[in-house]
Amino acid sequence: MEFKKLLEERSADLWENFIPTLSIDCVIFSFHDNELQVLTLKLKNLDTWGLPGGYVKKIENVDDAAVRILKERTGTENVYLQQFYTFGKMNRSENAFEEFDNTLWHKQRFISIGYYALAEHSHVNLYMDEFSSAVKWHSLDNLPEFMMDHRIIFDKALMTLREQLNNHPIGYSLLPEKFTMPELQKLYEGILGKKLNRGNFYRKILRYDILVKLDESRKGGAHKAPDLYSFDLEKYNNALKEGLKGSW
Amino acid sequence: MEFKKLLEERSADLWENFIPTLSIDCVIFSFHDNELQVLTLKLKNLDTWGLPGGYVKKIENVDDAAVRILKERTGTENVYLQQFYTFGKMNRSENAFEEFDNTLWHKQRFISIGYYALAEHSHVNLYMDEFSSAVKWHSLDNLPEFMMDHRIIFDKALMTLREQLNNHPIGYSLLPEKFTMPELQKLYEGILGKKLNRGNFYRKILRYDILVKLDESRKGGAHKAPDLYSFDLEKYNNALKEGLKGSW
Repeated sequence: MEFKKLLEERSADLWENFIPTLSIDCVIFSFHDNELQVLTLKLKNLDTWGLPGGYVKKIENVDDAAVRILKERTGTENVYLQQFYTFGKMNRSENAFEEFDNTLWHKQRFISIGYYALAEHSHVNLYMDEFSSAVKWHSLDNLPEFMMDHRIIFDKALMTLREQLNNHPIGYSLLPEKFTMPELQKLYEGILGKKLNRGNFYRKILRYDILVKLDESRKGGAHKAPDLYSFDLEKYNNALKEGLKGSW
Repeated sequence: MEFKKLLEERSADLWENFIPTLSIDCVIFSFHDNELQVLTLKLKNLDTWGLPGGYVKKIENVDDAAVRILKERTGTENVYLQQFYTFGKMNRSENAFEEFDNTLWHKQRFISIGYYALAEHSHVNLYMDEFSSAVKWHSLDNLPEFMMDHRIIFDKALMTLREQLNNHPIGYSLLPEKFTMPELQKLYEGILGKKLNRGNFYRKILRYDILVKLDESRKGGAHKAPDLYSFDLEKYNNALKEGLKGSW
C-alpha cells in the first residue's frame, strides 16, 4: 500500500486507542564485527534514517509499550531495556509529515520518551514492519543522516551508556556468553568514544574481579587462539550495586 | 475558595491550553541544618504530602514548563534543574480525586516527567500557591507519608543523585559558597544514605583537587572555628566532565 494511505488509515485507530502527544523512541545497541552498532529504520517516504518508535496505548504501561514497540517494529525482544530521557522541545518533530492533513495523528507535536536497548547481536531476528523500507545496523563510526531530532536522541543514549557503564550490566547485555579480552576492550572503547591503552585496560578490568577465564580459547583464525572469558554474574551484579570502582 | 470548586474552575482552562495526560513532578533538594531536605506541599483536600507538580502548555517546551512550575508552586527559581525519569505506570494516580466528576482535568491518567532541583537553601523564598495548605522542607531522615506514587518518584530522584554524584555539580549546587568539611561530608552522607569514615572522606575529597581552602574560618560556636572551603569551579567542572575518579 502507498505510504500516505497507510498512515491515514492507521490514524483513526491511533486517535481512538492511543495517548496523543506522546511517543516512544528506542535506541537499540548491539556489538558485532568488533564494533558497537545501532539499529535504524528507513520510513517508506524518507531518505533519512530513524530510530524505531511508536505510541502508548491508553490502557498500557509505558514500559510495556516500549517492549511492544521494539518487537512490532524490529523483531527485537528479550533485551535489556532502560528508559533514559524524555525529549520535550516544542519543534522537535517540526517539518515531519508536512505534506499531510493536520488531522493526521503523526503530525501532532510529540513528546518522546527515549529507551535504550542492549541486544546480544546473535539473538536479534530482524523484522521489518509495513512502514519501513529498510532496517539496518549502523556502526557508530559511520552513522547515517537521521530524521527529525533522532541524532540528538541517539547522542543522549550513548552519553547515558557512558555514565552508567559502572552501574548497569552493559557489557553483560551486549556481549555473547563467551568473549575475548580484545572484544571487551573494543566494546568499552565504542561506548567511551576513545582508544584505551591495552595494558591499562586489562589490569583495570581484571581488578574489578568480575570475569572468569575459561578453559578454552577461540578456534580458527591466523593468530594464536585468544583466551575466552565470561562474566561471573554474581560478582558482577554485586559490584554494580556499589558501582565499579574507578572511571576510565 | 473551596478546593473542589477551585479545581473545577481551573479544569476548563487546563483542557484548552495544556497537553492532556502529561504532568511534571519536581523533587527539590536542599541542604540545611546539616541535613539533606526535600520540599513538600500539602494539597488543601489531603492529609498526605506531595511533590510540587503541574502541567505542560501546548505551546511550551517541557524544560520551560518545569522551570515555570517550580516558581509558580513554590517560589523556587534559578536552581540547578535536571530531568531524571518519566513515570508511566497505568494506575500511578489511581484513587486521587475520586470524589470528582470524570470530566475533571486532574482525574485523567497522567504520565509524569520527574525533574530534580538542587537549591541553595538561603536562596529559596518559599511561596504557597492557592492549591496548597502547607509547604515544608522535610529532612530525608524523617520523610512524611506521600500522596499517590510520590514516594517512588522521590526515591528514584535520590538514586539518580547517588549515581550522578561524580558527574554532575551536585555539591556545588546545594552548598553555600563557603562551607566546612563536616558540612560537605554530611551532604555526601545524605545523598549516599550511609555514614562515611571522616579520615577517608577528607583524603578522598582532597585528592579530587576541586576544593579551595579559604583564609578564614567559621565564626561563633563553642568549638574551635572550623576551616572554610569553596569549590574551585574551573577544576570542578573539568573533573566532572571526566567523572570524579573513584566511588564511595
